[in-house]
Amino acid sequence: MSSPKLLVPEPVIQDRQFTKPLMCGPGPCDLLPSVIEALTKPVISPLCDEYHEVMADIRAGIQYIFQTRSPLVLPISGSGHSGMETIISNLIAPGEILLIPARGIWDDRAYNMATRYGIRTEVIKKAAPWATFTLEDIEPALKEFRPAGLFITHGDSSTGSLQSLKGLGDLCHKYGTLLLVDTVVSLGAEPFLMDEWGVDGVYTSSQKALSGPAGISPTAFSSRAEEKINKRKHEPPFYFDIKLLAQQWNCYDKIRVYHHTLSPPLVWALRRCLQEMINETLPKAWARHAATTAHFHKRVSKIGFQFLIKKPEDRLVTVTTFELPRGYDYKQFVDYMRAKHNIMIMAGLGPTVGKALRVGIMGVNATIEVADRVADAMADTLRALTKSSL
Amino acid sequence: MSSPKLLVPEPVIQDRQFTKPLMCGPGPCDLLPSVIEALTKPVISPLCDEYHEVMADIRAGIQYIFQTRSPLVLPISGSGHSGMETIISNLIAPGEILLIPARGIWDDRAYNMATRYGIRTEVIKKAAPWATFTLEDIEPALKEFRPAGLFITHGDSSTGSLQSLKGLGDLCHKYGTLLLVDTVVSLGAEPFLMDEWGVDGVYTSSQKALSGPAGISPTAFSSRAEEKINKRKHEPPFYFDIKLLAQQWNCYDKIRVYHHTLSPPLVWALRRCLQEMINETLPKAWARHAATTAHFHKRVSKIGFQFLIKKPEDRLVTVTTFELPRGYDYKQFVDYMRAKHNIMIMAGLGPTVGKALRVGIMGVNATIEVADRVADAMADTLRALTKSSL
Repeated sequence: MSSPKLLVPEPVIQDRQFTKPLMCGPGPCDLLPSVIEALTKPVISPLCDEYHEVMADIRAGIQYIFQTRSPLVLPISGSGHSGMETIISNLIAPGEILLIPARGIWDDRAYNMATRYGIRTEVIKKAAPWATFTLEDIEPALKEFRPAGLFITHGDSSTGSLQSLKGLGDLCHKYGTLLLVDTVVSLGAEPFLMDEWGVDGVYTSSQKALSGPAGISPTAFSSRAEEKINKRKHEPPFYFDIKLLAQQWNCYDKIRVYHHTLSPPLVWALRRCLQEMINETLPKAWARHAATTAHFHKRVSKIGFQFLIKKPEDRLVTVTTFELPRGYDYKQFVDYMRAKHNIMIMAGLGPTVGKALRVGIMGVNATIEVADRVADAMADTLRALTKSSL
Repeated sequence: MSSPKLLVPEPVIQDRQFTKPLMCGPGPCDLLPSVIEALTKPVISPLCDEYHEVMADIRAGIQYIFQTRSPLVLPISGSGHSGMETIISNLIAPGEILLIPARGIWDDRAYNMATRYGIRTEVIKKAAPWATFTLEDIEPALKEFRPAGLFITHGDSSTGSLQSLKGLGDLCHKYGTLLLVDTVVSLGAEPFLMDEWGVDGVYTSSQKALSGPAGISPTAFSSRAEEKINKRKHEPPFYFDIKLLAQQWNCYDKIRVYHHTLSPPLVWALRRCLQEMINETLPKAWARHAATTAHFHKRVSKIGFQFLIKKPEDRLVTVTTFELPRGYDYKQFVDYMRAKHNIMIMAGLGPTVGKALRVGIMGVNATIEVADRVADAMADTLRALTKSSL
């Protein structure tokens, strides 16, 4: 047959050469081999036998990784930012106050999102932009503003810092405040105990320590958060509405209601990530990350790199921020690591631009072998750039 | 090492037997083999060589499938519903009017979403809930309400009907109204010419005639829509903000700005879907769907099924709605098709509950061979249920 003439002709899409680097930036991480396999599993829909079992598996896995008994757990069909927007838009009403102790770009994002919904925001900062907060730093603001929610980032990939959450839930609840936590780059690598720590709304993403694909983001809500959701007068975006999503994901053993079409490859992949974490167990995954990073830090310290985060207990186990010796260029260092060693690390972001390298040893790459490979490459890069350009 | 005791112990996630059916419901469709392969391609991030080329490929492919020269084209990282919420929340401000000529559940969804943003909605309906609209049906409402936007579903999978869009863009523009179109289940199977028809905002999804995975949804905006976005005072959700997404997707050759982490498997898969459509060409894909469905309709008519949509020109090429002969049960029919023939078709949804079977012959399954297999199975099911239960 003859084809009608189209206004827009066929474009040319060429396959190009592409050498995958070892992904040792702040994320995304490389995929577990079993997760790559899971991506190719068959398309499923609500009429497939296994559909609801797969959803139940995922919810059980999410309860485990967050360490919560709450029934209101489910993954959002989107990136980590969709998880962030879900917890903020569901839990804080327009006109209510969200308190943000801020130390990196994810806190800036939470601020940006909140203002879009007419939520009033109060931000507290410390002198060093990457400094973490003590309970004493936070309590005066809770007392003054009596916010509906406090948003805090557990592991911050832009600064390489870890915020302790111990005692923060109780402190927030004393002032009638819900505790909202970003665990995108910490979950599965740093201990996180939702129920024990009194966290009310939390999200993570699968492309970091879970070694899965981005695009599906586990969330969990406490009974306090659930009560707020059930009593609220405001409506979040349809796509992020936890009330409707709880029906789709069968959180309450009621009738399952179609909300949106899930992505079968991402659903299968997340299920496999959770299975792998369950098989390893959280304590062993935490210990593996701790041991690998301790080894990595020891090696890199000997080469002459300084930690941006001075207190060891404030350093995030997944992403380390290093200062380069005086006279070195961050971008040049990152480019050489990629060109010569095919290892992807990243330069600073937000408050750490021009001030740090960001190196991620997490998930499937949290092994002594990878840590040594990255440390060797960093040593070589330091030598090479000394010789050639300084 | 000894593991600390966890509040939530490891759950058991078992692999179960699962026989994938031939996906011939209204969607999701089966995946193209090349798309399954694309899902396993390496993780990429903005620091990978091919990242921006892949994004450029996808944008060129989206311009082609929508037939638009607009630079403001990009995929949303979410299901088709995220595309719907993106065009509504970006293009219609709170307090403005959205006119919805409604004939299926997607129009109900658009109504639900719009009201969440404080958008005023006006709905027009015809006597038969699945009847399509003429320009004469629509013009009086445009004249009366002078809406900021008109939302209409091109192919409606809940009713199996196809809405003609010819002349609708000009009519809308006469009243200062933007034309917003859902093409989730029509694009790639039914002719769609965005620029020629004057469509201002459109979205589709990859799990229908494109035979890709759900979870990534191409959108496109006309220059009129772009102007509205640039002048608007309201802010949509962060995750759906086209102003920010246009920077991430480099729609204007400006600096690329990180917005959210894309899902590498879905990005690779969408790129492959677009490549496949380009290789086949749109006119050939349209002709293949038309020829296959014509053959399928002929065969199924002979068996004794009636079309729910009486006018042939109103029938959607991808999803056909059939009435069962008197005395048959829709659910029983669907269950038998699955149990005996391992073919998934679906019963009615929304206005067609208890009134129709929904059979989808689209994408990789739009072949005479599949059409014959489904028609044979439908004939057998009709005979079997006659014998056993009527």
